[in-house]
Amino acid sequence: MPRFTFTIEYDGTPYYGWQRQQDVSSVQEAIESAITKFCQQDCTLHCSGRTDAGVHAYGQIAHADIDTALSCFTIQQALNHYLMDERISILHVEQVDDAFHARFDAKQRYYEYHIINRRAPCVIEHQRVWHVPKPLNLDAMREAAMHLIGTHDFSSFRDSDCQAKSPIKTLESLELDQQGERIILRLNSLSFLHHQVRIIAGTLVDIGKGKHAPDDIPTMLSAKERAAAGVTAPAFGLYFVRVEY
Amino acid sequence: MPRFTFTIEYDGTPYYGWQRQQDVSSVQEAIESAITKFCQQDCTLHCSGRTDAGVHAYGQIAHADIDTALSCFTIQQALNHYLMDERISILHVEQVDDAFHARFDAKQRYYEYHIINRRAPCVIEHQRVWHVPKPLNLDAMREAAMHLIGTHDFSSFRDSDCQAKSPIKTLESLELDQQGERIILRLNSLSFLHHQVRIIAGTLVDIGKGKHAPDDIPTMLSAKERAAAGVTAPAFGLYFVRVEY
Repeated sequence: MPRFTFTIEYDGTPYYGWQRQQDVSSVQEAIESAITKFCQQDCTLHCSGRTDAGVHAYGQIAHADIDTALSCFTIQQALNHYLMDERISILHVEQVDDAFHARFDAKQRYYEYHIINRRAPCVIEHQRVWHVPKPLNLDAMREAAMHLIGTHDFSSFRDSDCQAKSPIKTLESLELDQQGERIILRLNSLSFLHHQVRIIAGTLVDIGKGKHAPDDIPTMLSAKERAAAGVTAPAFGLYFVRVEY
Repeated sequence: MPRFTFTIEYDGTPYYGWQRQQDVSSVQEAIESAITKFCQQDCTLHCSGRTDAGVHAYGQIAHADIDTALSCFTIQQALNHYLMDERISILHVEQVDDAFHARFDAKQRYYEYHIINRRAPCVIEHQRVWHVPKPLNLDAMREAAMHLIGTHDFSSFRDSDCQAKSPIKTLESLELDQQGERIILRLNSLSFLHHQVRIIAGTLVDIGKGKHAPDDIPTMLSAKERAAAGVTAPAFGLYFVRVEY
């Protein structure tokens, strides 16, 4: 049966995350249902990395085996037709080798976290960015970020529900890009722990507000407990941007 | 009574435009109500330029006379508090001379029109950009834009409902900025006719699709009738960016 990959954009707002769950809407369930509708077959999607409720994606990658002779272009058009009432768009479909796996073959995952730093509320980008009214010290945040790059035990930066066997991860890059009132955090790693990006974003904002100092980061890391790091930033500021294979 | 100016951001989606109207929600009515709630007085807002239903603003300017000794900062905070359930944010409040008029003193109005040009639907920016699936020839659109810059009779580029006395306007600038799949039209003029920006955007898209040639623009202008120009682009791609005084 041919294997296909899908590049997927979604607005996370109306979904309880990527993963199929009973009684609530998920991105996975919406796309699997669309495939079933036009191919008349059950199908399981495997994504490169699950996203939480409310998290957006510009370039999630997933694969599935579909018994079809239709072209990739036709599959994309049909899926987008069946997804018309959803907040999901199939950007690209490609046939791949039977051995390809969206999750296990991923070499690097790229995320962005978007903050608007100004006093007035944010209405055009409501639920698309984290609105932080208090002025942030970007230099302090950048200095703190330097301590997070590299291979560390990120136990303090993962949710207590995190099921990863090892808390040791290599954060390849963490950049803070300022564009007027907007601050974009850009991160990439082979893989992330549960809530890792959101706890990093929340902790950097705490440091930007002066609640912690940049060189508190090594102490937070060595504490190896969630309570040592800062707040978990809200889901709606987080974007899964792309995957490198 | 002191006169104040307000710099206003709004998401146009839930409003029937700027102007107060019976039985439907408007941006003007929402802000006037907020002022009345915290100042216990009736108040009339005068904006620099009315926007249609669905059109967004990053920097609409309006003025009002309010009998208050409160600081601009307090007024801003209070207004944003009372506007909490609206899609309106007061970015800045300033006390101005009694003779200042948001509409009559405006020297230049700046608009942007946002297009996403790709086959797949746009979900994260749903109702924030015009999704044009067919590939657009940007060179042709830029060539066409050159014919629109300057002083012209824009009768073909205004809505049949337009109440402006003269159809002659000076379009100071019209630039097309491409950022990946995004095309941003940036326009500024002392003032615009009703639907002028949206008809310009729609006509340029028609030219980008090859429905008209760039040098059909002079013919469209000289026809002086709405039917001669292209389609009216949807309201939700339009942003009122700022006003120069």
